[in-house]
Amino acid sequence: MPRSPGRPPLDAHPDARAALLDAAVALYAERGIAATTTADVAARAGVTPALVHYYFRPRERLLDAVVDERVSRFVAHVTARLPGADTPTPAWVAAFADAVFDAAEAMPWMPPLWIREIIAGDGALRMKMARHLPREAIGALAARIAEGQKRGTIDPAIEPRLAFVTLAGATMFPLATQPLWANIAPGAVPTRGDLRRHARAVLAHGLTGPATAAARGGRRAAARATPARSVSG
Amino acid sequence: MPRSPGRPPLDAHPDARAALLDAAVALYAERGIAATTTADVAARAGVTPALVHYYFRPRERLLDAVVDERVSRFVAHVTARLPGADTPTPAWVAAFADAVFDAAEAMPWMPPLWIREIIAGDGALRMKMARHLPREAIGALAARIAEGQKRGTIDPAIEPRLAFVTLAGATMFPLATQPLWANIAPGAVPTRGDLRRHARAVLAHGLTGPATAAARGGRRAAARATPARSVSG
Repeated sequence: MPRSPGRPPLDAHPDARAALLDAAVALYAERGIAATTTADVAARAGVTPALVHYYFRPRERLLDAVVDERVSRFVAHVTARLPGADTPTPAWVAAFADAVFDAAEAMPWMPPLWIREIIAGDGALRMKMARHLPREAIGALAARIAEGQKRGTIDPAIEPRLAFVTLAGATMFPLATQPLWANIAPGAVPTRGDLRRHARAVLAHGLTGPATAAARGGRRAAARATPARSVSG
Repeated sequence: MPRSPGRPPLDAHPDARAALLDAAVALYAERGIAATTTADVAARAGVTPALVHYYFRPRERLLDAVVDERVSRFVAHVTARLPGADTPTPAWVAAFADAVFDAAEAMPWMPPLWIREIIAGDGALRMKMARHLPREAIGALAARIAEGQKRGTIDPAIEPRLAFVTLAGATMFPLATQPLWANIAPGAVPTRGDLRRHARAVLAHGLTGPATAAARGGRRAAARATPARSVSG
């Protein structure tokens, strides 16, 4: 790793460097990059501020390391668990939700960091993320959905190019915003387990259902009674 | 409306006040509240900065007016178009997507403003939004989904309390982040029409499908061939 010139601080150590990155992602998730100082990161990691400068000066180097050594791990964790090039069944789609929820359990700082610093507004990490986008997985998902449409098992109204946006909207989005929904959702506070079970079901049905007249219809169709549905699987 | 003391500026006029609010939401959506000055808002509205101070001093008053007179309109536009207390069919659920997409066509500043200033991080408008949450509509949606579950037409794995989060994740989220996906989605750039059609289909299937063994199963189930499905509606 690149180092600033000068004598290493007494607490320089690869473990300390890793602790700084862990402290950085936790603080960025909690309060955002703009509101986190170098001293905050050092204090959270239990090291001297000199160590942050030693490993990550200028500060841009800390942001690069956060993306290349922490955010990229989340992406790799998800893509490693994605189901293979199979026929897109409901369970195949639900496995995408599991991949994200598993990664979020191992790296709970990622969903809030993602919405703060990558998705919303002028996210400070957005441009840096370009080099870690799982383009292959996104393309493979679209191709599988399109294949299911050709076979007639998936509604042609589904847009294969947008399947990954739907995945993000059904997994990362509720994970990132869980503290908000807790106050708004009617009834008992939803748990992470509730979020996962719900996301699996929504995606399994939402991305794999064949066309129905009712789904294509407008409000007039909505006024009709529930159509008889039979699904076996 | 409350006014600051002193002589009204020469350009004071109810239309100018409305133009200031329109300019404010447009700028907040584009660059965020923190990066928007009073002078920016005045320039965009084509009035003098003195007029902003006249109507909206202190600045908190401008944020209150944006929430109470603009963001609240978006919420009212959506809730006015929601389908009534009907049996939750696919088309009934798709009508929720239409309500949001219709509102976003009339008020395109809302999705980006929503993700920047209400959803992500410490959104400056989040607390102010509490007084405009469509709690009744959120509760009614949950009740209808639960009713469909009792009748056996909706998968019990769906969490009624989270149905509105799924709606937001399938409509507001892609609308708010459309510029990002344009660069990532494989193939041609998705249009707003693509987003709407896709969201309708995902929600229609995603929130109304009955239970399937495959949707509940894990990766083992995903490895099986596509189950035969027949859906009539």
